[in-house]
Amino acid sequence: MQVRHFQQVALQPVQMPGASGCQVRWLIGTAEGAPNFAMRQFEVAVGGHTPKHSHPYEHEVFVLEGRGVVLEGDVEHPLRSGDVVYVRPEELHQFRNTGDAPLKFLCLVPNSALGKQVTVAPECGS
Amino acid sequence: MQVRHFQQVALQPVQMPGASGCQVRWLIGTAEGAPNFAMRQFEVAVGGHTPKHSHPYEHEVFVLEGRGVVLEGDVEHPLRSGDVVYVRPEELHQFRNTGDAPLKFLCLVPNSALGKQVTVAPECGS
Repeated sequence: MQVRHFQQVALQPVQMPGASGCQVRWLIGTAEGAPNFAMRQFEVAVGGHTPKHSHPYEHEVFVLEGRGVVLEGDVEHPLRSGDVVYVRPEELHQFRNTGDAPLKFLCLVPNSALGKQVTVAPECGS
Repeated sequence: MQVRHFQQVALQPVQMPGASGCQVRWLIGTAEGAPNFAMRQFEVAVGGHTPKHSHPYEHEVFVLEGRGVVLEGDVEHPLRSGDVVYVRPEELHQFRNTGDAPLKFLCLVPNSALGKQVTVAPECGS
């Protein structure tokens, strides 16, 4: 068993093309020997966003703090604390901070996601 | 994509032997077609607890609200908002609310957990 506060885990910059102002904490993953899926916590700065992309694996997301939107293709869904987002495999999606404080959320992925290629949509600015 | 607030999902009583005062919301799971793992949100009433048990699959847990402990066998680890718990497969564990308000946490499991047998430890009261 491993127990720790999420803030004990170092924030790392998200270096993916199309990401702006994004940082990530790997809370539970291969380092812990998690056999099936990984728990990450993202912090998106005011005005920042994740890549607008799709990939062959799903996301399971829980919003902790902040305000934002998640794009389902070109459709915006507002986000607030307590919102749950299921992004299906191959769905084009992007998380954007539209508030005045960091947008913080959990985003879990299957281990099959690690090392897989992603497809960045052409309209995805940095 | 599915977006909804966790409180839009109905709380259901946890009927497992050894559980007391536990309710669960299935936030993302097989109903959504999630192919690999399921996101559930638990609420444990004041004085309540989950079963003390082990099983062949892992838990990935994020504490949202409340105070409690998680038992790793007979060792207690305190819990508060923001704590992250990784329970390895086959580890004996129990979550207990030791505070004065509901203990709320996310607990994710691989789809392989669904329908698998669990082993309730003899010392687990109801």
